[in-house]
Amino acid sequence: MPYFRETLDSLRPYEPGEQPASGETVIKLNTNENPYPASPRAMALLRTIDEERLRRYPTPYADEFRVAAAEILGIGQDWILVGNGSDDILTMLIRAVSDTTRPVAYPTPTYALYRTLAQMQNAPVVEVRFDETYTLPVDALADSGAALTLVASPNSPSGNRMPNDAISTLANRLNGLLVVDEAYVDFATDNALNLTRSHDNVIVLRTLSKGYSLAGLRLGFAVGPPGLLTELGKVKDSYNVDAVSAQVGAAAYRDVEYCRQNVERVCRSRQYLTTELTRVGFYVWPSEANFVLVRPSDGKARELYETLKTHGILVRYFDTPELNDKLRITVGTDAENEKLVAVLTQLVR
Amino acid sequence: MPYFRETLDSLRPYEPGEQPASGETVIKLNTNENPYPASPRAMALLRTIDEERLRRYPTPYADEFRVAAAEILGIGQDWILVGNGSDDILTMLIRAVSDTTRPVAYPTPTYALYRTLAQMQNAPVVEVRFDETYTLPVDALADSGAALTLVASPNSPSGNRMPNDAISTLANRLNGLLVVDEAYVDFATDNALNLTRSHDNVIVLRTLSKGYSLAGLRLGFAVGPPGLLTELGKVKDSYNVDAVSAQVGAAAYRDVEYCRQNVERVCRSRQYLTTELTRVGFYVWPSEANFVLVRPSDGKARELYETLKTHGILVRYFDTPELNDKLRITVGTDAENEKLVAVLTQLVR
Repeated sequence: MPYFRETLDSLRPYEPGEQPASGETVIKLNTNENPYPASPRAMALLRTIDEERLRRYPTPYADEFRVAAAEILGIGQDWILVGNGSDDILTMLIRAVSDTTRPVAYPTPTYALYRTLAQMQNAPVVEVRFDETYTLPVDALADSGAALTLVASPNSPSGNRMPNDAISTLANRLNGLLVVDEAYVDFATDNALNLTRSHDNVIVLRTLSKGYSLAGLRLGFAVGPPGLLTELGKVKDSYNVDAVSAQVGAAAYRDVEYCRQNVERVCRSRQYLTTELTRVGFYVWPSEANFVLVRPSDGKARELYETLKTHGILVRYFDTPELNDKLRITVGTDAENEKLVAVLTQLVR
Repeated sequence: MPYFRETLDSLRPYEPGEQPASGETVIKLNTNENPYPASPRAMALLRTIDEERLRRYPTPYADEFRVAAAEILGIGQDWILVGNGSDDILTMLIRAVSDTTRPVAYPTPTYALYRTLAQMQNAPVVEVRFDETYTLPVDALADSGAALTLVASPNSPSGNRMPNDAISTLANRLNGLLVVDEAYVDFATDNALNLTRSHDNVIVLRTLSKGYSLAGLRLGFAVGPPGLLTELGKVKDSYNVDAVSAQVGAAAYRDVEYCRQNVERVCRSRQYLTTELTRVGFYVWPSEANFVLVRPSDGKARELYETLKTHGILVRYFDTPELNDKLRITVGTDAENEKLVAVLTQLVR
């Protein structure tokens, strides 16, 4: 008997973007982290956490964060399920909903983890290709017969948000669950939260990794009808969110004004990058996220990725047929963005 | 189509021990937390964590903790896989090893999460009853045909450690993986770490929740042959351990002398409780953990649990046929243990 399930033989684990060793000075525009620091209030709270907090097990449902998020969003606490990052919620969804007879569907290209998670569960995967405008392929997804449909909005790597009417139409036509993964929604002009009220099969995912500059803390959550979240909670780890994350995350989430200011700065810089990269000759997809997808005019994305690396600038290159002529570039600080534009201007001159 | 897998209908999620609301003054001897605070060095380090740490994604394999654990244990870093608590490693094991045709076996009564996790995966479960001495049932486990065999050592709720020769014999006879869950081993006289070297199918689990007073931080790890851990890592969340836990956990794990002193205190108190509870008329199972399993002479465990609760003392009662005449009592501080003994002395007078 082999020690592991056969599935693992062919499983390619999700590959996170490369992280430079600490100490290396690199302009890091490859993993969509927020260029600005987390809320000073959250950081101040971190320094007050006492040993008694760490000695005891945390609350199983991360109550402190749950209460904060419910207040800020103006919804009931039972409409929120907290995870060790929104990846943790995605794992719960796949384990609770999909299996060998219950397919998972999503439009591609998108967050590569969806496929990995479905494969772990031996679930059939229905991938529907976006066209070059990244319009939500409602018909094809609705016809997929999936038990679980995943839509990232704003989508990565394209950056566009899916309109609520399209999401709503899709939800109506599906027999299964529809998950709207709003990891990047803090940088967008609208969101799908209301659809969790108007449809009994819609769950929205949020994270503090992007808008709240807390990727290192691992905190995300699901918003959805309490009946759905109760079922999801059955497959979560007993204490999936640690005491530090719940407390610090709550403080960050309550610091609404600080977050808003950071987001505004990022959106202004996104506009700057869009203008400048277009000037350099790239095609830049319209983005509502903290990154832009671009296509160099010659389509030689890998070469450009390598060249930028030699200049100390890390961007994201995806070695897949749909994406190997494009790059995904995270919005950085003003100085970082200007350096990127300067280097690119020189390179394409 | 129902929204969730049929499995979830019958799934009873693991029920963590009750946690009193913050502010309540309760003597809490029900969830095996360490009565003493975490390492002052770890707490000092917590206060130095800067926003840059939290802004970026953590390292996927919790490098800081991994390096620390490898040094302290004198093994290679690739012999260690870090989890969001050892529960996270158990989840990886179940997902990587078991399925509908690959059974999970363990002796009972033990950590109730094993059953829950196996059920989530739709894996056949082989439960082998311990006798009243809680001797490892090597023959029955070896004959179970399991792909994954889980042995808690020291076992909860019995408190006894399984001898290495019995574990070794079991490992030799199994065709599948043997996991020795050493959550409580810091309070024991020996451990099974060497068996990961002498057998290619043995993985040992450790946690910082008990010996290191960091239940709130969620940090555990697996020790085993690198080839096994690589496979396990395929089903882990991309960033399963947050930056705070990895860093603070590393400092705690390096503070060997502080941990040793705390453990000594707990072991002395365990001896005190064993003596005093025997004097009160309980049968006390010999324990190498930070708790004792006891049987009141009249076997009326539920009544005693309720009565102790009215005295502000919380112990663990398990409502199962094997355990409903017993209580599991965590070793507390000297004052807590003395209060417990005083109340019990009065009750049974």
